Amino acid sequence: MRKEITSKQLKTDQFIQEKVKEIQAEVGDGTAINALSGGVDSSTVTMLGHRALGARLKTVFIQNGIMREGEPEQVVGFFRKLGVSVEVVDARAKFFAALKGITDPEEKREAVTQTFYKDVFGKLVKRSGAKCLLQGTILTDVDETVAGIKRQHNVFEQLGIDPQKAFGYRIIEPLIQLRKDGVRKVGKALGLPAELFDRIPFPGPALAARVIGEATPERIETVRKATAIVERSLKASAAFQYMAILHEDRVTGMRDGKREFGQQIELRCWDSVDARTASPTQLSFDVLQKLAREITETVPGVVSVTYNIASKPPSTIEAV
Amino acid sequence: MRKEITSKQLKTDQFIQEKVKEIQAEVGDGTAINALSGGVDSSTVTMLGHRALGARLKTVFIQNGIMREGEPEQVVGFFRKLGVSVEVVDARAKFFAALKGITDPEEKREAVTQTFYKDVFGKLVKRSGAKCLLQGTILTDVDETVAGIKRQHNVFEQLGIDPQKAFGYRIIEPLIQLRKDGVRKVGKALGLPAELFDRIPFPGPALAARVIGEATPERIETVRKATAIVERSLKASAAFQYMAILHEDRVTGMRDGKREFGQQIELRCWDSVDARTASPTQLSFDVLQKLAREITETVPGVVSVTYNIASKPPSTIEAV
Repeated sequence: MRKEITSKQLKTDQFIQEKVKEIQAEVGDGTAINALSGGVDSSTVTMLGHRALGARLKTVFIQNGIMREGEPEQVVGFFRKLGVSVEVVDARAKFFAALKGITDPEEKREAVTQTFYKDVFGKLVKRSGAKCLLQGTILTDVDETVAGIKRQHNVFEQLGIDPQKAFGYRIIEPLIQLRKDGVRKVGKALGLPAELFDRIPFPGPALAARVIGEATPERIETVRKATAIVERSLKASAAFQYMAILHEDRVTGMRDGKREFGQQIELRCWDSVDARTASPTQLSFDVLQKLAREITETVPGVVSVTYNIASKPPSTIEAV
Repeated sequence: MRKEITSKQLKTDQFIQEKVKEIQAEVGDGTAINALSGGVDSSTVTMLGHRALGARLKTVFIQNGIMREGEPEQVVGFFRKLGVSVEVVDARAKFFAALKGITDPEEKREAVTQTFYKDVFGKLVKRSGAKCLLQGTILTDVDETVAGIKRQHNVFEQLGIDPQKAFGYRIIEPLIQLRKDGVRKVGKALGLPAELFDRIPFPGPALAARVIGEATPERIETVRKATAIVERSLKASAAFQYMAILHEDRVTGMRDGKREFGQQIELRCWDSVDARTASPTQLSFDVLQKLAREITETVPGVVSVTYNIASKPPSTIEAV
């Protein structure tokens, strides 16, 4: 494996030129495919691949039904402006079918991952006739896989398949020598818009990680509405990360003088440098109460809103 | 029914003299019984009854297992100092048996009420041979029963029994013309200690109303520990009411570098005049984070603490 290129060592233009050549050499006169999530890594790989292959790289965006409000449209729109056409694949029914009845956080993550690789993207890759698969793996992913923190990052290792033996596929991982800061530099040089870099961290299982208990379409819609309010309201806070979590517990509330056994949204907003330790941002009560009011007034069924006041550890950033 | 005596109209000494005479006339040379909870109403009735009847009034304190830390000892101690002996009846097993498997808030309340009246106090009254039952019913209870807000306040109506016909009992309700402020005046005049008046409101189903989901002995013990911390820490806040609520939802946490799928405590602290509307007290983040730290460090299994930021309505004061 090739050696790390630190952000300091990185010569962006030279790096892009080299990777473009490498991708062209690997793919030859065939075609390639990649999955775009809208994160910095997959966005950068998409731009790099299109610079190398043009229309011979097919980029798909999997609509899994557990994204944030307007997320697919926003990501596809960014790339349309950059002259890159992205195919949106509606796989909502498959993801919700896989999530049905599952309440354990680990099993939820597993259902999302397996559906993505086995049921949706795996099949797309096969059907596409592509010889190469481009992936946004970065050095941190490799380290974390080795350390056992992250699951294997490679699509085919996920499936327990040697892609070359099985299908004659080749995996191309052009960012594997970089860390996040290096990827950001390359992405910027490739013309990615600032909005893509400004985004706060967001978990792999998306909004399924933001509901305690089963991730049904209705419950995802509830937390999606609350998430939109929180992200819009706290954008200016400069906090490390902020989120809305839908609880499974029911709490008593009242509406129009009548008892309503309703739902609760928990808000978390974190001060942190590297996510290893974190403490709740000391937001003003004006901001907190305004958030609670907007959520209880506009998100159906929510009668109660709380704010996390514990630190990590013993809490974690996400609840699920 | 006799007319309301407002706090302004109330002549405390005269009121006490009259009620003492009435109780003596009703009970004659028989005996009476009453249940003391430690609340202002039942404490005032206990003092009034003992002034009238001395040892011929048997006062029982039902230990239901869902009280706060040290509560039975504290209440019995107050009365011992006032020369009133209170019999503690250990009914913990009966209450927990009745609460077993029940998660619905209304069914929990019902289980606590029914166990108290039918299974525990009802039987005690019968066995005591008392001719009269003293109760701390106040005018607000009557109003709320009429308005359908509260359940019937009368023990025997609870049981669907006309006590006089069935057992020859008589119910004596010496405080029924007063409201809370009037009762406080009478209680003070009867020598009740300030601690009894300073206490924040506490719900009838006690700590069973402070756990979402099943009220098992273990879960009650968890919320009891958190409640003790919150009540001690927020005593100086001068807030209307404050509480700890144990959630049923599990959230991810980490302890000693390892993942812990733990429990969450929600704190509520209310600013309110009459409990009809309320807003969260704007406690400082120093206080909030200190509370979260103490709870996660000392209450086993708790990895997360939140603070309520919604108002009533659409929230309610209690969650269950």
